[in-house]
Amino acid sequence: MNDGSGHSALTPQRDFARLFNPRGIAVVGASTDNTRIGGQPIPILQECGYRGGIYPVNPKYAGIGELKCYASVADVPQPCDLALVAVAGKLVPDVIRQCGKAGIAFATVFSAGFREVGAEGVALEAELKKAVAESGVRVIGPNCIGTMNLVDRVYCGFGVGFKNPNLKQGPVAFVSQSGGFAYSVVALAESEGMGFNYVVSAGNEADITTLELAADFLERVEVEVLVLYLEGVSDGRRLRALGARALELGKPILTWKAGNSAIGRAAAESHTASMTADYELYRAAFREGGFIEVRDVAEVVDIARVFLGKRMPRGSNIGILTTSGGSAVLMADECDRHGLTLPHFADSTVSAIEAIAPKHCALGNPIDLTAQISGHNEEFNQIVELALNDPNIDQMIVRYGTVQGARGAAWATDLVAIVNRVGKPVIVSLGRTLDSSRAATDIFDANRIPWVLTPTRTALAAGALGQYAEKQRRYLATKARGLNRVVARQPIPAASTQRLSEADSKKILGAYGIPVAKEQVLGPAAIMALAESPLKFPLAVKIDSPDIPHKTEAGAVRLNIDNLSALKAATATIVANAKSYKPDARVNGVLVAEMAVGTEVIIGVINDRFFGPVVMFGLGGVFAELLKDVTYRFAPFDVETAREMVAGIKAAKLLTGYRGSAPLAIEALADALARVSLLAADHADRIAEIDINPLFVNEHGIVAADALVVLKT
Amino acid sequence: MNDGSGHSALTPQRDFARLFNPRGIAVVGASTDNTRIGGQPIPILQECGYRGGIYPVNPKYAGIGELKCYASVADVPQPCDLALVAVAGKLVPDVIRQCGKAGIAFATVFSAGFREVGAEGVALEAELKKAVAESGVRVIGPNCIGTMNLVDRVYCGFGVGFKNPNLKQGPVAFVSQSGGFAYSVVALAESEGMGFNYVVSAGNEADITTLELAADFLERVEVEVLVLYLEGVSDGRRLRALGARALELGKPILTWKAGNSAIGRAAAESHTASMTADYELYRAAFREGGFIEVRDVAEVVDIARVFLGKRMPRGSNIGILTTSGGSAVLMADECDRHGLTLPHFADSTVSAIEAIAPKHCALGNPIDLTAQISGHNEEFNQIVELALNDPNIDQMIVRYGTVQGARGAAWATDLVAIVNRVGKPVIVSLGRTLDSSRAATDIFDANRIPWVLTPTRTALAAGALGQYAEKQRRYLATKARGLNRVVARQPIPAASTQRLSEADSKKILGAYGIPVAKEQVLGPAAIMALAESPLKFPLAVKIDSPDIPHKTEAGAVRLNIDNLSALKAATATIVANAKSYKPDARVNGVLVAEMAVGTEVIIGVINDRFFGPVVMFGLGGVFAELLKDVTYRFAPFDVETAREMVAGIKAAKLLTGYRGSAPLAIEALADALARVSLLAADHADRIAEIDINPLFVNEHGIVAADALVVLKT
Repeated sequence: MNDGSGHSALTPQRDFARLFNPRGIAVVGASTDNTRIGGQPIPILQECGYRGGIYPVNPKYAGIGELKCYASVADVPQPCDLALVAVAGKLVPDVIRQCGKAGIAFATVFSAGFREVGAEGVALEAELKKAVAESGVRVIGPNCIGTMNLVDRVYCGFGVGFKNPNLKQGPVAFVSQSGGFAYSVVALAESEGMGFNYVVSAGNEADITTLELAADFLERVEVEVLVLYLEGVSDGRRLRALGARALELGKPILTWKAGNSAIGRAAAESHTASMTADYELYRAAFREGGFIEVRDVAEVVDIARVFLGKRMPRGSNIGILTTSGGSAVLMADECDRHGLTLPHFADSTVSAIEAIAPKHCALGNPIDLTAQISGHNEEFNQIVELALNDPNIDQMIVRYGTVQGARGAAWATDLVAIVNRVGKPVIVSLGRTLDSSRAATDIFDANRIPWVLTPTRTALAAGALGQYAEKQRRYLATKARGLNRVVARQPIPAASTQRLSEADSKKILGAYGIPVAKEQVLGPAAIMALAESPLKFPLAVKIDSPDIPHKTEAGAVRLNIDNLSALKAATATIVANAKSYKPDARVNGVLVAEMAVGTEVIIGVINDRFFGPVVMFGLGGVFAELLKDVTYRFAPFDVETAREMVAGIKAAKLLTGYRGSAPLAIEALADALARVSLLAADHADRIAEIDINPLFVNEHGIVAADALVVLKT
Repeated sequence: MNDGSGHSALTPQRDFARLFNPRGIAVVGASTDNTRIGGQPIPILQECGYRGGIYPVNPKYAGIGELKCYASVADVPQPCDLALVAVAGKLVPDVIRQCGKAGIAFATVFSAGFREVGAEGVALEAELKKAVAESGVRVIGPNCIGTMNLVDRVYCGFGVGFKNPNLKQGPVAFVSQSGGFAYSVVALAESEGMGFNYVVSAGNEADITTLELAADFLERVEVEVLVLYLEGVSDGRRLRALGARALELGKPILTWKAGNSAIGRAAAESHTASMTADYELYRAAFREGGFIEVRDVAEVVDIARVFLGKRMPRGSNIGILTTSGGSAVLMADECDRHGLTLPHFADSTVSAIEAIAPKHCALGNPIDLTAQISGHNEEFNQIVELALNDPNIDQMIVRYGTVQGARGAAWATDLVAIVNRVGKPVIVSLGRTLDSSRAATDIFDANRIPWVLTPTRTALAAGALGQYAEKQRRYLATKARGLNRVVARQPIPAASTQRLSEADSKKILGAYGIPVAKEQVLGPAAIMALAESPLKFPLAVKIDSPDIPHKTEAGAVRLNIDNLSALKAATATIVANAKSYKPDARVNGVLVAEMAVGTEVIIGVINDRFFGPVVMFGLGGVFAELLKDVTYRFAPFDVETAREMVAGIKAAKLLTGYRGSAPLAIEALADALARVSLLAADHADRIAEIDINPLFVNEHGIVAADALVVLKT
């Protein structure tokens, strides 16, 4: 790789195999003082069982421990695939360049003093990026605490997280934007029996990003579950692609998103933008993709374990079988909260169970076999199998007290056979402590039968599995049918201002077939000269100006005009008001529009710099703004997705028929949402924001009564 | 106590001291077979260290193990304060009578076969209650698994929960309506270091209830935290009294409420009643009293531990000090979710911290001292003390990595001194596993400094403490000012029907000074004869009949009548419509009312059989019914509480001034709420339900436009 000229650059690696499993590792800035960062990687590598070459680099030493120490990266023997860099921040760019020349393809930079420390650090980080680009070396960090490959026992890092050589291994990878926190999660997860195979602290992401690492791990066969700790990403589209890929592979991404303050966009022009916090966009991405939001270590452990069971429910129907009334009631409550349904068991199932169950048991759903069944493994498991085979049941939770000793092991072994026979997902909810359940859980672990502590945690994990399965079905169906465009790409008129007037905004909507109010823009003089109304009363009259977006505030709107003289009077008033409100406003004329009736909704678009265009939908006014009863989808989408949006708001019943009122034209509404999404996606290079507020929906159709399109600057 | 006549009854005990700490225990139905329930209590009592007399009762045996066995309860030596009853269900009433004669004041009945098994069992339970009443014996159960007093080592029960003689002890009592589940919680809580002093499975509560037990434990000095697992109680007033007492004592009741399905009251007459699930009433009781709702074992452990710290924050301002950016961000998010505020530290605090903190630390709130501070105990603790002394800060979360070995112990010891010096609550958030934090947590436990695992759990516990403190302040303030009645008790007119007509309903509201629309009930003929309107146009015209509560549905309402001939026409129409809708309806006349304007709200009352009268408030129509944006308070209450109700709905801004609209007359609204609550409380013996829907609120005042009062049958 090094051509010896001293000026070559590596071909930048996109395959991270050698980053996590290097044949040799240079430790640059190695030290004999292990209170210093540079002193820690070598003992950690050795104690944790690294089998490749370790090459300390530090001109101050001839050797470190038993190892020969090299004066420079250039002197390090080959093959050496990775440099761990612990020198002072300002020396890092040069070290990276040296790595490039020496043919070392990867570096993990522990050094701090980059953008996290302010302006000076930002400059140094820019210098580092330049070194990365020029050298071709792929870099994790700077300001990270390292990476861990538990499969091959390659621990490349420093700090307390790396000082346990016996960490449990498991098919779960973890990429984190907070290093210290990640390794604390790993330690806590292990104390509940969950192991990882790769753990990476991404640091400042000057080169390799969290999403790039996540995408790499997701494709690895040995990674079955991916955990992400995220504070923010700068590539929302890539996050969405990652989510889609996860659903294709059937792997979940357990996503712990922090930093979700609800601050809207300060500089927004439209209502839509000003009421949309970044977190809403993340949530939209999480909702459509293979992400499962988690909020604590216990959720990571439980949901990961349920997915490692490798069985997906066909639907959201769950059966619960327990021996304690309290846990039955709690799990029923919590399953309901997490979107699962507890159907009745079929009559034939109930009669078959009745023949075996103890007297006076509750044979609904949940089934509570009471403590009377304790120790009766055979009967208990027969009932499990009957219930699991019920056609109404997609997955089951089973809770049983006999989990200790030989009887517990025998029960577990039988249960494994049942689950394998029936093929539906079963989660064992432990009624005992972890320690006292070991006889059973060891067998479950060996056979990938998930178990979870406490009724509340069990129901949450079952709900996560159910919701993921539903998302996967929806994703595959959407993918299979493709995007059914309800309208082909249309040209939109050129505009001279960034913020379009209402009439110009509506023209753009009209181009995509979105119904707008019947209207005309007329000069004031032309209105004064009218002998009869050009449109049907009642009418709305508004100033049409790109410089007056808030027309009501300017006194430049009059509604419910029902005769010609009122129209003329209103025209005079609003023209005068607009003039006094903003004397230099450019006025296109007076917009005269037929009044619409119906329920007010709002459709909005934000073209986010990270996520691209996203469409918001909600009921108008306070429903959207005060109660935040809105939903988001990324553009473009088709009518089927639009229908989900309409059904997805809490107040959806107001549209579908409420207390005897007729159902409104929600098909037309869904059609308009799909059209708005196509408009936003087709012209994402030009459109920054759209507000259609209000759009009226009545029994017969829809009509956009006001609109604002803001173009990109 | 036994007068020897064979017919005496004990004076029923209200002091449970001897129930939990008996001088002697009779085991009725004792068996040598410990796979049977009757075989378990004696070995459990012995192995767990019970020091009083144990008296097996069973005519089949002469002795059980080393113990003499008695043929009958009558033969048992005195003193004997408690019988553990494990005989067949049908024999239980007689055993209780025998206990009464023998002077045994308490019995815990394990036997099943009572109301939990249906009609036959219900009869047996009635028989048991009779035996209780006649004998004076106080009974726990039947169908319970027993009681545990860890202080005095009295384990009276059966099953796996009682088979650990070394359960950790702590100042927490647990009363549960599910026995098996409770002991599973106890075992799990112990694995996180939490101990209990009393644990009781209340069983069927044929005599002693969960609330009676809870009230007893709450008064005990050795009980500092009470845990309740509740499925339902039949005395809501007592639940409320318990909550009030908890606030007076400053003890929290951690309440795990299950069985919260959202089914409304099937037989309800009013909207209010039909949209109110039982769980809403429990939540109202939990909100006003010293209850903290919990949903998992971890919450029980964490919140209990925080309260055992015995320090109450003065307000909701929290400071966070950590060494990991990830945990800082997460805790800030979660504290916000749990009602805590992160204020800025004072400038003087920040400068003082700056002088000690490592470079490039984030000194906002959270303060992130980064891993650079690791091992620098002194500096870290100096910063803790500076931050804790900040006048803006009411409580703090502290997270630090050096918790192992001598350094960890030294750090913990110093922190204890700081907390004692400053006197504000501090929660230590552990960044490591429980096992590796032991050096520090042992010191914290000995000094009552609370510690919690994971950022999410820590913030939840801190939030619970903050919310409890706020409730306590509010409770004490309310108690200090007393109930400020805005209106004295008023008589309400007699009524001949259960469901009053609109006009009669409004008369009752009027008696309590609640403003109603200006209106008259006139005969149709009188209206036809009118020469001018008796009221100001526009008018509403409605049929006034106790038999037509849903007037709109009957076509018996006309609104916005603005002239006399329209009034006459409308009268003719609604009389005809009412006649054809319900030919036999009793019609009082036609209600003519001045139209009200403003924002529609709904005020409702349900007089719950368990909780008594409760007032509901929300915005009208879909806000209340579809979005469930309503709030509840028990009647009676004063204007101050009413103001909290108004401010407590999500859409409160619609009343207090939204997007430039003028604030509405919320003082008048609060006054009306207080009046409704007084009406409901003063006449709780007669009033079953009230609906005031809508009540209009405008800038100048309020007016009830429609009302329905339903009396008790």
